[in-house]
Amino acid sequence: MYEFTAPFQTPSGSPIRELFRYLSEPGMISFAGGYPASDLFDVEGLASAQERAYQASSRCLQYGPTDGLPELKNELLALMGRRGVLCAPEQLLVTTGSQQGLDLLLRILVAPGDVVMTEQPAYPATLQAMKLQQASIVTVPVDGDGLDVGKLASLLASGVVGRPKLLYTVPTFANPTGATLTRERRIELLKLAVKYRFLVVEDDPYGDLRFKGDTIPSILALTNEVEGSRDWVVHFASLSKIVAPGLRVGWTIAPVEIARRCVIAKQTVDLCSSPWTQATAAEYLADGALERHLPRITAMYRRKCDALCSELRSQLGDAVKFHQPEGGMFVWTRAEEIDASQLLMRAIENKVMFVPGKAFFADKLDPSALRLSFAAPNVEEIVEGVKRLKRAYDELLAAGISAV
Amino acid sequence: MYEFTAPFQTPSGSPIRELFRYLSEPGMISFAGGYPASDLFDVEGLASAQERAYQASSRCLQYGPTDGLPELKNELLALMGRRGVLCAPEQLLVTTGSQQGLDLLLRILVAPGDVVMTEQPAYPATLQAMKLQQASIVTVPVDGDGLDVGKLASLLASGVVGRPKLLYTVPTFANPTGATLTRERRIELLKLAVKYRFLVVEDDPYGDLRFKGDTIPSILALTNEVEGSRDWVVHFASLSKIVAPGLRVGWTIAPVEIARRCVIAKQTVDLCSSPWTQATAAEYLADGALERHLPRITAMYRRKCDALCSELRSQLGDAVKFHQPEGGMFVWTRAEEIDASQLLMRAIENKVMFVPGKAFFADKLDPSALRLSFAAPNVEEIVEGVKRLKRAYDELLAAGISAV
Repeated sequence: MYEFTAPFQTPSGSPIRELFRYLSEPGMISFAGGYPASDLFDVEGLASAQERAYQASSRCLQYGPTDGLPELKNELLALMGRRGVLCAPEQLLVTTGSQQGLDLLLRILVAPGDVVMTEQPAYPATLQAMKLQQASIVTVPVDGDGLDVGKLASLLASGVVGRPKLLYTVPTFANPTGATLTRERRIELLKLAVKYRFLVVEDDPYGDLRFKGDTIPSILALTNEVEGSRDWVVHFASLSKIVAPGLRVGWTIAPVEIARRCVIAKQTVDLCSSPWTQATAAEYLADGALERHLPRITAMYRRKCDALCSELRSQLGDAVKFHQPEGGMFVWTRAEEIDASQLLMRAIENKVMFVPGKAFFADKLDPSALRLSFAAPNVEEIVEGVKRLKRAYDELLAAGISAV
Repeated sequence: MYEFTAPFQTPSGSPIRELFRYLSEPGMISFAGGYPASDLFDVEGLASAQERAYQASSRCLQYGPTDGLPELKNELLALMGRRGVLCAPEQLLVTTGSQQGLDLLLRILVAPGDVVMTEQPAYPATLQAMKLQQASIVTVPVDGDGLDVGKLASLLASGVVGRPKLLYTVPTFANPTGATLTRERRIELLKLAVKYRFLVVEDDPYGDLRFKGDTIPSILALTNEVEGSRDWVVHFASLSKIVAPGLRVGWTIAPVEIARRCVIAKQTVDLCSSPWTQATAAEYLADGALERHLPRITAMYRRKCDALCSELRSQLGDAVKFHQPEGGMFVWTRAEEIDASQLLMRAIENKVMFVPGKAFFADKLDPSALRLSFAAPNVEEIVEGVKRLKRAYDELLAAGISAV
């Protein structure tokens, strides 16, 4: 048998994935997934985009350029233009979901032991990717307005973190907290990046899923307002949450030399993402289908989010605390008197699921937090799901297991 | 500007990719690509497979399991069964082309400085992947019968290579040499793997492209004949060369614990390969379309290979030496009096291209070698291409640039 002798530690399986076996239980209502709603996919629109793309069948079936099909890159550049970002083709590469973008970036930038910073709580795969690259992780807390940039400033001024290479953040409708970084904090963050010379790594899969309030420009778009800051921002985006994850189309926008090195790494890693799904995505975008589709999904996500939040208030009242998000897929909830992992066990018995908050922490975990996603269940399921959650909560309190 | 301070060296761009800009010149005949022939794609068969797959549209459009769609895994297990290999579902993972399989394997096994072995000349992306993981590369030479297993045995017995973690080889119709490892050498290699406890990493994208001679079982299939050897083989395969690269469907077969760790790494790297193209591939295989398609492409590749070899003989005669391959896509040629890089410059002027051999060496490069691929050009282009090659060769000799 092969002995694993490398000093390298394979990260353990995701705690979220371990919940998957319960998902298939009959009658289960799940707030656990980070998946978009399957019943909102634009099945017809994508079928017809595929058909148009396949008219150039060799283009779909042959290898494609490592940085992405030019026609898709053009559409993505145009999309970024509509989001207030001008960028050149050589600053953009197409990846297999935006997740590959982060992995490529960490591989070209981070040597074992290098300091990287992340907001916390954070997307678990980000923490895993940092561990896979053997980075030394420094966490910065998040509040209802997103990353606590004041705390970050103190941390950097104190010098205790050494010379960090980058800071990872999901500034808009964050996973898991649903919080959105204020415009003021974004500007402040860019100033810190320029001053301390670290990369702001902005992950933006949910930005288009706004159903309330005013749009705040992405950190990348705001580089126009902070001199020299454009050199210090890497931006990830994706069609997974706004069109369909099955396309596996994400993209990275980075300073040219960083983008170039990511492309070289990708050449080694998987040569290219599927040109077939890339060509389909290009046709879908060229047709204006995304602009027609977005209002449909944001309207539905608003209804779902409203249902979840109002049920949480009416069923659980003061027992839970949360900020109602203005977009995205998640409500981050704290139930101060209980341990969310214990609540989950009761909840599963009551046929409802969520993800306990500990999955999102690299350190200093908050045992009373839970992430509720309203994306997949329908409104009726959401209402019923919160009732079950309340039952599980009452049972847990009645059993006297309230120690945190 | 970001300063790249990591000790890590990004590998330089592939020398093959640098040739790409010449490919689009009008009238260029290319023996350079490692691409399958676009005009041999089963355009209709794949269109109809896609249509069937899309009947379960949510399955195509939603995230899928990291280790691959179960229906595709079942088809790939059945395909491996027809190739003489029994394996369990947990030993197989689907990857974004087989290239991702190698990258995942190196990431979970190889720490910086670890010794890995590879046949040489070797596929350039393999050398790059090893460098990206900061491995210490030891090369083992290849002759007309593939990897020189005798030399490998001496090397291992001498102890100079320390404790190698693995040996990479393309034993059947190798890229770039076209050579096939004999059955006896395969058995010998497996015995060495068991004795010295290293993994044999068998890359097998071309095995089904046999157009002459008798099938030799893969190294993985031959583990039945060498006790304890199954624990020491990792096998990569792919639909890229036998169906279409655009699907980006490859797979890895490995001992369970290695496969499990690769899946965990893939979860971090890109979550899953496109379920849409996976479902399409599953439908294509389930329909028996591959078995109907293979005889068509092997018959055509035989004609092309015969044309290339007979033209090389008649046009260039004793000036070049090569072994005529029994399958695959490549003829490895040595033109002893010339430098292949200089020949390439002349060749491009004469509107014909190939890849100079130096791209395939980590050390001790052979300046007179060139790789000719017969896959993409048609027979008429092959005949004309060799004439142009002869012209370039004569010009080079006439110019007196013959020093190697």
